[in-house]
Amino acid sequence: MTFAQYVAQQQHKVEEALQRVVPAESAPPECIHKAMRYSLFAGGKRIRPILCMAAAEAVSDAPAGIEQVACTLELIHTYSLIHDDLPALDNDDLRRGVPTCHKVFGEAMAILAGDALLTLAFQVLAQLACEAGRRVKLIEELAVAAGTVGGMIGGQVHDLEGEGKHPDAALLEAIHTAKTGALLRASLRMGGIFAGASEEQLGALSCYGEHVGLAFQIVDDVLDVEQSSEALGKTAGKDVQQKKITFPAVYGLERSREMAEHERLMAHLALRPFDERAERLREIADWIVHRQT
Amino acid sequence: MTFAQYVAQQQHKVEEALQRVVPAESAPPECIHKAMRYSLFAGGKRIRPILCMAAAEAVSDAPAGIEQVACTLELIHTYSLIHDDLPALDNDDLRRGVPTCHKVFGEAMAILAGDALLTLAFQVLAQLACEAGRRVKLIEELAVAAGTVGGMIGGQVHDLEGEGKHPDAALLEAIHTAKTGALLRASLRMGGIFAGASEEQLGALSCYGEHVGLAFQIVDDVLDVEQSSEALGKTAGKDVQQKKITFPAVYGLERSREMAEHERLMAHLALRPFDERAERLREIADWIVHRQT
Repeated sequence: MTFAQYVAQQQHKVEEALQRVVPAESAPPECIHKAMRYSLFAGGKRIRPILCMAAAEAVSDAPAGIEQVACTLELIHTYSLIHDDLPALDNDDLRRGVPTCHKVFGEAMAILAGDALLTLAFQVLAQLACEAGRRVKLIEELAVAAGTVGGMIGGQVHDLEGEGKHPDAALLEAIHTAKTGALLRASLRMGGIFAGASEEQLGALSCYGEHVGLAFQIVDDVLDVEQSSEALGKTAGKDVQQKKITFPAVYGLERSREMAEHERLMAHLALRPFDERAERLREIADWIVHRQT
Repeated sequence: MTFAQYVAQQQHKVEEALQRVVPAESAPPECIHKAMRYSLFAGGKRIRPILCMAAAEAVSDAPAGIEQVACTLELIHTYSLIHDDLPALDNDDLRRGVPTCHKVFGEAMAILAGDALLTLAFQVLAQLACEAGRRVKLIEELAVAAGTVGGMIGGQVHDLEGEGKHPDAALLEAIHTAKTGALLRASLRMGGIFAGASEEQLGALSCYGEHVGLAFQIVDDVLDVEQSSEALGKTAGKDVQQKKITFPAVYGLERSREMAEHERLMAHLALRPFDERAERLREIADWIVHRQT
């Protein structure tokens, strides 16, 4: 199977799992389920679930039920996009190539849809068909990664506070380690935990996740400068417009690209404890850095 | 100990538990922790945690660590208040006698503070010092009660959709069973689950919770008509102003008061399987119905 085929197959598994765990549009109250599904199924590369499943595969052969774990990362990611796009935050009209949730369903429903996706993620993990000890570890991992102390919300706050400030390397790192890094790292760790990874393997997955997370954010910042809104499916050039602290703003475009390449190599290095079962993780690191959208 | 002393003591335990589980104001990023703490510690009767602890006491003698379970209900309740008060939803300026979270910290920070309290509730439950199977049950209970299908968010959506519609008994029940009922019922059940309740006991606590939940909401609606904003610590008369579907709107004030009294008696009846250890639950039902704020 080529890497492109592998990604398509994994994306398909994620779509199926999301279809299973999210209430049907016909379930009352209908409008909230429509809003949740609208944003969830508007596309998206599903990088977090794919990383989660690849991490599990690196540890053990095809662990059954991993898709359900993986899709909780997409629930959290989508909730964060819906809330970030609100007028009070980034005020964005376009996401994944379509109008943002609040543009279609109104602000009230977008706020509640985000809340509901966040809540659902923990319900899905609590209801997994695996031993309770493992479920609790997964829930703790996700809650911490999505939280305020070194987690996604904390990063979002640093990001808001940083707007308009002098671009500064330390603040940049604080923002991105937390804002995107924590959830990407958790994606890897949750895959490992579900598959029964050893401490050494979990450490390696964390390290890989940190490098890949940083690479992902650098490339995201670069693409925001270089690509069109049409190609990205979201409003391009927003970072400059909102005076965000980004890698190109601090280091320039060329140095940013070099840094992403460096992180890609470090990610490969982190995977040394793994055999060929980690091959997809290696390819994903390359994909993340070399992608054009 | 009088009932008033008992309530004060339980409230104190909840305050202490909340102080322990919420990051300090000095923890970076400071502003989000300030916003979370501002809304959490602005007062509030702590009815949900008190119900949770009283349910645990009805099942077993002083189960250690129940305060930590109980305080997660207050985290969820407070997040829902912060988001409900936002301009896009109920647009309220006053809560628990002080300006609402978004009035003090801005809308962006209020949205994120709500998200953070919701996330923290699940982290706290995942990190409880009890066996994993019990923690998972508590997490599932809370997630379902806070969710869209028969849970708090679902009720909030029904409520928004009901604004301005003809006051209708069926819609009224759908709104309140979900909007306030589900979390109040979960408060009782979580106390029972933590204390190791039998299926029969859990059923009785659920039944008590449903009646007390309904009584609570009826009285809330009545007080909104009868009391001043000053007494309530929140904007009084909002229900009529926003054309909300309430018990007084459907049944009138006198009939609403009779219904609350009926629910109080039914709540007492539900507790028949319990001995004198459920005495505080009986007193709480009386308190909920006879309160003036």
